[in-house]
Amino acid sequence: MSEVENYLKRFTKLNALKPGTGMNRVFGSGAYSEAAEDMRQLFESLSMESYVDSVGNVHGIYRGGKKHEREILIGSHLDTVKDGGIYDGLLGIVAGAECVRRLTEEKQELSCDIHLIATNGEEGNELGGTFGSRCLVGAVDTADPVFMQKAAGYRLDREKIESAGYSFDRAAYYLELHIEQGPFLEMEKKKIGIVTGIVGLQRYHIHIKGMSNHSGTTMMQYRKDALVMAAELITYADKLARSYPEHFVATMQRFTVSPNSLAVINGEADMVLECRCSREEVMEDYCREIEAFCSRFGEGTVTMEPMVKKAPVLTDPALIRLGCQICKEKEIPFTEMPSGATHDGNMIATRVPIGMIFVPSHNGVSHSPEEYTSSEDCETGVEVLYQMLLALSGKQ
Amino acid sequence: MSEVENYLKRFTKLNALKPGTGMNRVFGSGAYSEAAEDMRQLFESLSMESYVDSVGNVHGIYRGGKKHEREILIGSHLDTVKDGGIYDGLLGIVAGAECVRRLTEEKQELSCDIHLIATNGEEGNELGGTFGSRCLVGAVDTADPVFMQKAAGYRLDREKIESAGYSFDRAAYYLELHIEQGPFLEMEKKKIGIVTGIVGLQRYHIHIKGMSNHSGTTMMQYRKDALVMAAELITYADKLARSYPEHFVATMQRFTVSPNSLAVINGEADMVLECRCSREEVMEDYCREIEAFCSRFGEGTVTMEPMVKKAPVLTDPALIRLGCQICKEKEIPFTEMPSGATHDGNMIATRVPIGMIFVPSHNGVSHSPEEYTSSEDCETGVEVLYQMLLALSGKQ
Repeated sequence: MSEVENYLKRFTKLNALKPGTGMNRVFGSGAYSEAAEDMRQLFESLSMESYVDSVGNVHGIYRGGKKHEREILIGSHLDTVKDGGIYDGLLGIVAGAECVRRLTEEKQELSCDIHLIATNGEEGNELGGTFGSRCLVGAVDTADPVFMQKAAGYRLDREKIESAGYSFDRAAYYLELHIEQGPFLEMEKKKIGIVTGIVGLQRYHIHIKGMSNHSGTTMMQYRKDALVMAAELITYADKLARSYPEHFVATMQRFTVSPNSLAVINGEADMVLECRCSREEVMEDYCREIEAFCSRFGEGTVTMEPMVKKAPVLTDPALIRLGCQICKEKEIPFTEMPSGATHDGNMIATRVPIGMIFVPSHNGVSHSPEEYTSSEDCETGVEVLYQMLLALSGKQ
Repeated sequence: MSEVENYLKRFTKLNALKPGTGMNRVFGSGAYSEAAEDMRQLFESLSMESYVDSVGNVHGIYRGGKKHEREILIGSHLDTVKDGGIYDGLLGIVAGAECVRRLTEEKQELSCDIHLIATNGEEGNELGGTFGSRCLVGAVDTADPVFMQKAAGYRLDREKIESAGYSFDRAAYYLELHIEQGPFLEMEKKKIGIVTGIVGLQRYHIHIKGMSNHSGTTMMQYRKDALVMAAELITYADKLARSYPEHFVATMQRFTVSPNSLAVINGEADMVLECRCSREEVMEDYCREIEAFCSRFGEGTVTMEPMVKKAPVLTDPALIRLGCQICKEKEIPFTEMPSGATHDGNMIATRVPIGMIFVPSHNGVSHSPEEYTSSEDCETGVEVLYQMLLALSGKQ
């Protein structure tokens, strides 16, 4: 059994490797706190200086450089969703630990330090996702009383949140290995995805106002069926999304109609349109086309209100090139691709250039006990991460 | 104020004629029982033999013929939906009462009796719609213990249900004046609809099985979005329905998707497809086309299970001709049309030829306090009913 497998088992316990048993290192839970202390001990055992910061992020610093002038960050999140999988988050941390173990074993001399960070609260939670990394970069609004009230429920006060802020002054790069959480690599028979960026996201609330009426006595020509109008819009939105470049996605979510009774034509429909893309102008263009389509239903019939607009995040071009070059040299089947999901990198990219490596998710499943990435695929990911680290720290 | 208006007010009370105040003569309610007794008294005051039968139908018999060999039935329902309107049901009963009043006033001699029936429980209720008329024709299964358990909740036992059975031996015709409950007459600028039949109805439960997944990481080409498949089906079903003759209607109802969360592609969709038509073979053809369309989603993706199949009911051709002839003679703008809703006639037609007259529903609204038919339109309906009655009872 490889070291990475050993590390994964250490944090998921043996029984948890059985299918159907979910991980529950949920933000704010006792299980998370235990795992954080255990992670600190793992870092310590690999000759790293280690500590759990005031918001629960775990740090491990490997002193590689003599002058400590620079450091390379490697991280991912230690928390999981409720009933989550083994690999989401954890793989990126233990991959960093394995890189440090190998550096030591191979007695590599580096020109910089390696700083591992296992973040807390990356998954959606009451304080918002990527909480740990938002604290690291100082992007939490401690002046918001509503937020601070919620934070108090997790025994977090202003001092704790602010003192978790990290100085990125010595940080040269942030690297993260993560499972893809989609089926693309597996479908395309690739072992590595070199991430070109984390897509932006826009969500709109769409309301359609038709006319509710008796479904027996209202002839087709006098109807204004909100469900039928919604169906035309959903069909169009899906077709239009498919006409955009490969990695553009759009999804209609949270769909309801009213009054939704037998023998009644639906009078109203509500839904959320979400689109994600690494190019903001493509999302804007898509939403303009959707608005133009909606005008066919007549003035005042459809309203479309923005709910969320999250800008795309780019990964560092030099890191993309480096990752691709390593895969080519090692003859690893790879592809460049955007990340469709949010990661800690969204926050950390505001302070330091980031690079991300994806490994395949079997059947594209994540956030589920069925989440699976083969040991071989995990190893391949660790190998690419290690080679990038060597290249960046002045060794190869 | 006309007598019909007076009668309507008597049963809806003055305050109930204000917009926004609904009628509540719901099946099983005290309000219904009070109204039934009041209706019996109205019948009595018009020199009719009157009684409330063992299931709450109110009968009034006007002895017109000397030998009592034949009778003509005139009826409609006295119950309402919760928060119902003024005209639905009640108009047909008071129209019958007004006909009897005029017969007396004009000292018309008839060759038959007139039998008014105000039915109970025509609107959807726990014992099933058209309950009162089902009792009259003996179409209630008193051997069904589940049904009888429910009936007991309304103080109805086998004896009461069976003794409400009526012998239709002397009945020549059943006539009913009713509001249209749709916008057709108003849109077509007609004052009378001569009903050619009551449409049949078919309902199917449709289930679509897609694949739920992350809406950010699952690219368009790998999706099996149940909401999108449902949208394509709904759009097609609506377009197809519009390609059938004018009075064919089809409606998708009770629509839900699952898991219906943010950031998640929907994996399942459930809905009820309802179609109504006066020709059964048209409904069968429509449903075959829908099934054929569903096969495009791949085997096992869509299931379509029949829930309800109600056959169309024809009205009597001689009564249709008579109604049309009267409208022509009186220069009343009229049209022949099917009824898209169920009526007491559905049951009574199993025993005696039926004829129905529709008057316009403003904006097509019914089952609502906003239900409205002008006094003038009510009078026109009564006039046609009266002329039909005279013609059928040997007078003109």
